[in-house]
Amino acid sequence: MPNSFGKLFKISTWGESHGAAVGVVIDGCPPRLPISPEEIQVELDRRRPGQSDIVTPRKEEDRVEILSGVFEGLTTGAPISLLVRNADARSNAYDEMRDKFRPSHADYTYQEKFGIRDHRGGGRSSARETIGRVAAGAIAKKILKLSASVEIRAFVQRVHTLEAPVVSHFPSLSEIESTPVRCPDAITAARMIELIKAARSDGDSLGGVIQCRIKGVPAGLGEPVFDRLEADLAKAMLSLPATKGFEVGSGFEGTKLKGSEHNDAIRNEAGKIHTVTNRSGGIQGGISNGEEIYFNVAFKPTATIMQSQQTVDKLGNETELTGRGRHDACVLPRAVPIVEAMAALVILDHWMRHFAQNKSFKF
Amino acid sequence: MPNSFGKLFKISTWGESHGAAVGVVIDGCPPRLPISPEEIQVELDRRRPGQSDIVTPRKEEDRVEILSGVFEGLTTGAPISLLVRNADARSNAYDEMRDKFRPSHADYTYQEKFGIRDHRGGGRSSARETIGRVAAGAIAKKILKLSASVEIRAFVQRVHTLEAPVVSHFPSLSEIESTPVRCPDAITAARMIELIKAARSDGDSLGGVIQCRIKGVPAGLGEPVFDRLEADLAKAMLSLPATKGFEVGSGFEGTKLKGSEHNDAIRNEAGKIHTVTNRSGGIQGGISNGEEIYFNVAFKPTATIMQSQQTVDKLGNETELTGRGRHDACVLPRAVPIVEAMAALVILDHWMRHFAQNKSFKF
Amino acid sequence: MPNSFGKLFKISTWGESHGAAVGVVIDGCPPRLPISPEEIQVELDRRRPGQSDIVTPRKEEDRVEILSGVFEGLTTGAPISLLVRNADARSNAYDEMRDKFRPSHADYTYQEKFGIRDHRGGGRSSARETIGRVAAGAIAKKILKLSASVEIRAFVQRVHTLEAPVVSHFPSLSEIESTPVRCPDAITAARMIELIKAARSDGDSLGGVIQCRIKGVPAGLGEPVFDRLEADLAKAMLSLPATKGFEVGSGFEGTKLKGSEHNDAIRNEAGKIHTVTNRSGGIQGGISNGEEIYFNVAFKPTATIMQSQQTVDKLGNETELTGRGRHDACVLPRAVPIVEAMAALVILDHWMRHFAQNKSFKF
Amino acid sequence: MPNSFGKLFKISTWGESHGAAVGVVIDGCPPRLPISPEEIQVELDRRRPGQSDIVTPRKEEDRVEILSGVFEGLTTGAPISLLVRNADARSNAYDEMRDKFRPSHADYTYQEKFGIRDHRGGGRSSARETIGRVAAGAIAKKILKLSASVEIRAFVQRVHTLEAPVVSHFPSLSEIESTPVRCPDAITAARMIELIKAARSDGDSLGGVIQCRIKGVPAGLGEPVFDRLEADLAKAMLSLPATKGFEVGSGFEGTKLKGSEHNDAIRNEAGKIHTVTNRSGGIQGGISNGEEIYFNVAFKPTATIMQSQQTVDKLGNETELTGRGRHDACVLPRAVPIVEAMAALVILDHWMRHFAQNKSFKF
Repeated sequence: MPNSFGKLFKISTWGESHGAAVGVVIDGCPPRLPISPEEIQVELDRRRPGQSDIVTPRKEEDRVEILSGVFEGLTTGAPISLLVRNADARSNAYDEMRDKFRPSHADYTYQEKFGIRDHRGGGRSSARETIGRVAAGAIAKKILKLSASVEIRAFVQRVHTLEAPVVSHFPSLSEIESTPVRCPDAITAARMIELIKAARSDGDSLGGVIQCRIKGVPAGLGEPVFDRLEADLAKAMLSLPATKGFEVGSGFEGTKLKGSEHNDAIRNEAGKIHTVTNRSGGIQGGISNGEEIYFNVAFKPTATIMQSQQTVDKLGNETELTGRGRHDACVLPRAVPIVEAMAALVILDHWMRHFAQNKSFKF
Repeated sequence: MPNSFGKLFKISTWGESHGAAVGVVIDGCPPRLPISPEEIQVELDRRRPGQSDIVTPRKEEDRVEILSGVFEGLTTGAPISLLVRNADARSNAYDEMRDKFRPSHADYTYQEKFGIRDHRGGGRSSARETIGRVAAGAIAKKILKLSASVEIRAFVQRVHTLEAPVVSHFPSLSEIESTPVRCPDAITAARMIELIKAARSDGDSLGGVIQCRIKGVPAGLGEPVFDRLEADLAKAMLSLPATKGFEVGSGFEGTKLKGSEHNDAIRNEAGKIHTVTNRSGGIQGGISNGEEIYFNVAFKPTATIMQSQQTVDKLGNETELTGRGRHDACVLPRAVPIVEAMAALVILDHWMRHFAQNKSFKF
Repeated sequence: MPNSFGKLFKISTWGESHGAAVGVVIDGCPPRLPISPEEIQVELDRRRPGQSDIVTPRKEEDRVEILSGVFEGLTTGAPISLLVRNADARSNAYDEMRDKFRPSHADYTYQEKFGIRDHRGGGRSSARETIGRVAAGAIAKKILKLSASVEIRAFVQRVHTLEAPVVSHFPSLSEIESTPVRCPDAITAARMIELIKAARSDGDSLGGVIQCRIKGVPAGLGEPVFDRLEADLAKAMLSLPATKGFEVGSGFEGTKLKGSEHNDAIRNEAGKIHTVTNRSGGIQGGISNGEEIYFNVAFKPTATIMQSQQTVDKLGNETELTGRGRHDACVLPRAVPIVEAMAALVILDHWMRHFAQNKSFKF
Repeated sequence: MPNSFGKLFKISTWGESHGAAVGVVIDGCPPRLPISPEEIQVELDRRRPGQSDIVTPRKEEDRVEILSGVFEGLTTGAPISLLVRNADARSNAYDEMRDKFRPSHADYTYQEKFGIRDHRGGGRSSARETIGRVAAGAIAKKILKLSASVEIRAFVQRVHTLEAPVVSHFPSLSEIESTPVRCPDAITAARMIELIKAARSDGDSLGGVIQCRIKGVPAGLGEPVFDRLEADLAKAMLSLPATKGFEVGSGFEGTKLKGSEHNDAIRNEAGKIHTVTNRSGGIQGGISNGEEIYFNVAFKPTATIMQSQQTVDKLGNETELTGRGRHDACVLPRAVPIVEAMAALVILDHWMRHFAQNKSFKF
């Protein structure tokens, strides 16, 4: 249960950082979708280590294998099992963590919860777990694009205090992918890269904000009460490692406006109902209104730093710990495809739920 | 499904603003808990209209009735059905909304989703739905306090741009309840009240931020991957009407720190493991670490304002609409018990889940 | 959770035999369905006490009230809350059961599970709980009939050892309702009535078998693995009080055939694929094949009998107990609408699930 | 969703008969359980083909690989991913089934449901899917035995019309495993083996009944209303390929008794409450009462027979089909460990659910 997400398009991830493999099982995928390992690999390559000189240099190829649910290139409606073997696991780099708790990591909490902990590379709490999410998200994105022309685009909006100018258009994938930092503003991107490199050479780390925008979602997705579209997006985003906040539409800043300034007036644009502004972020009362959906996600600075920190060991002895291994000084560039994947999973699941209740019967 | 929340302590709310009643069914409540209608009523009175001169003057008593699941003053383990009859419903105040869509409300989206809409008072999208949440939350809070000494305290931290000083201690209930605005800082509270009254007399509305703090949660609650404690809290909060954002611990501001500044060092305080700082907000890797949990929730300014706004009707004709009826110029004071209720539901559910997996067997 | 049934058309029942009321909340109902209290009442009247001289003479009217989810005669997509007030509760008739455990009832097991028990009329274990199921089933049946021409017909096939001849046609509602015992074979029905009256005058009780048949279900409903259509029907039926068995299609007797005798050959009947025989009972591999679905449900003799029985009290003292109160000597006639209701809930839920996965996208 | 089973100890199976592999992901397993691949393999060997001369001679070793969730021989609380590679797949033996629908198989229904079908060996509808169930069940059985002394024993009670004498004691594993047919009565077992061999040489097949008995379950497991213990057992059993019926306790035959004959009197045996008889089958009102639980499952004769049968192809042309490949003339001997596995999953899940609601709080 805790390792599953979604109600109708349901994914279940499994695997530890330094175990045999990581993977995902997708249950409820619509049948007859053409899908190939290569299409999934494209997304995995956007999150994999070693893809550029500002991310961790670990050499993991992360090749995906489709084990079930696809027959002669088409999904069959049966569960799709995807597997990525782990490689380049230098487990001994983690020997010190067997007994010491890394500050602001999940070491202490896992130990307290389960009474046991696979300390190697963070075990289950490692961000390698998100491989399964990205793989499943690749399929969800394809369904949404193919069948519904929905497009999802995330990008790095801020690193530390360096914020990109507001992106006024819906950015293209190539704009975002043109720099390794995945910020569509080229000038800011260059400065972000410098910032990340500087932090890394200091043995330090940086956080920031990813923005995600979704166009093409028709009015009507999302449920009235608990399963509001923004509630499920919030859960999806806060379920990602290192996230500390979520805001949709006008977000926290919008709370400083008055109602007369904040409300989105409604007009008829050539026969189609639209809002004049979009402070609602494309969602009203938990349900999409047909405008662009957008939200921000806050990522804290990477917890692993190459500096000595105060901590305790399993016996409670106070001690120090210096980060080892190869880590990202800033996770945001690699988190972009993960945010997109989670957004796709939420939208697709709500699409199917909306259809089930509202379109499967005619009275 | 969309009207239920929780996995083991599960609530299902039902009811419309101007229907016969609103209510909630609680499934999975532990047996033998002493509970009375009066205890639930205390919390409902904190959210009910007409409780002070800065909230809507609607005269709803919101008396709760326990229909099942309690026998001779104790819960039986059977579902607890709670019902509050609707009263003082001036449905005709909403006649104009039958055809016109109120800006930044759920009118248009409900119509698009369902092809039908109970327009009276917002129907199902009305905040009256939260009565069931508060009632269920009263029971959850009692269980947590009685059995686990967990305490949950929400308060108004900011109205519009007026922010209270950081509350350095865990505020008492009486501090918060001492003013109708539910801000524990008396001076700020007085100014907030003025601000809200001014907005109301302008026919305008205000938003702001509610902070929630939870003490006494032991280490170990929350699940590693999707059902992280902060993810479920985020979903719970974004499922509330008018919310636009959520941040836990250091939140959005924390992303401007470096890892070396942000990490919470760990120490041994007289045999108990604690963090020196608490930027993690009491949660690490999705699991509580025994420190105080705290988070902020952004509420937009109330959508209903007493000013003319541009909109369209169901036929697509452009028109204008001026808010009528009796509304809150600022929902935050009444939202405080709702935030607490949702937090209690999340913590309790995770308590039960944690125990089921980790404490029901001994090897 | 334990008091809910269904994934997309989800019902949650609540209430005890001698509490204030019993009820049900339906979540996920398609919008714009015309529904009235009268239509629901028709089904409730088929299960209510006092409807004939072979059922319990308790005088409960069981009037249903629609509290939410219906606006101007149409469902809105919001949860439908249905309530039936309890009446004619002679709680003192149950005083003896406060301390003594009735044999083959749920008294001892509830006490052991929850450590508390509402002993009045069986509390939550009373068959009054099925009122909510029948009310929800009335709506499900209407949707299925209106939108999909699916018809569901249950009837009493056997009482004690008295079995009706095989019903070769799909029986009409009027055939079944023409006698109070709800067996469509008039001659057998008359004898069943005598049998039940004789058992009652002996202070004894009888069990038997209900058959249920469903026509109009298209091929494709049901899920391949765990949520097979017959698995969900089996669960639905075994979730009814007093049931001891379920068999679909050829059932237990069919296991005495060889494969060459049992297999259903397939033919093309004027362009439509059909099986020559229907030992599969309309379901193959968990999925409907378009043939008539049929299954049997075994009901044990009513546990409450007017004879002295050996038991113990809460302190473990051995004692005797004689049934009091007004009970059915045979529950089958009143169980017929309950079986239909549960079958309707299963079929409808699977309909929605099937459409969500297989019809909401086109590639 | 449709490929998952359980609420707290949740399994999700995946894989097709002739795909790369089959497997299962177990979510919610208690941590710190010692488990090895060898322990799981023992159960898989009980279901694998080629284990004796009365089952299919296919040469599949079915070696299980643990991919995650186990660290240094102990479960960690993270999902356990188990994988078995497929081998010896003679896909071309199934070429004819690409277009023709096998009678009483899932070919036609899968095609109708999904519009696509992996015809090789039945694809997802193959009983190879149960490998994941047996593997997960091995873990569930170990937890139950280790932590709660619960033992689960299934055996073949009837083949075709040849029924074993009532087994009066709780049979030992070695009694059951002493013959390849898994009937604990040696004389009947020998005759069953002859019967199966004769059917096979006729190119025909046989069905029958498996009985399952469970001892050591404490009073209190199971939920009052929908998730009754017998309801979940019924669903579990009817979710197995080839099953047609389920009965608990006195079952269908018990419906021919009167209440006065059927009720289980209660007595105090040296301070422990017991029933004198056990027609309830260890479950009353959906909840275990501490007595032995027992139930029967009906299995139809194997659908694949080596005789010519009438069918149609995908274009609707009438044609004939003769079974090919290597199949079981009677599935019951290999189904015994599968029945045990499903029973273990149900009992374990209810154990955890019971504990969560009733034992995680003290008032």
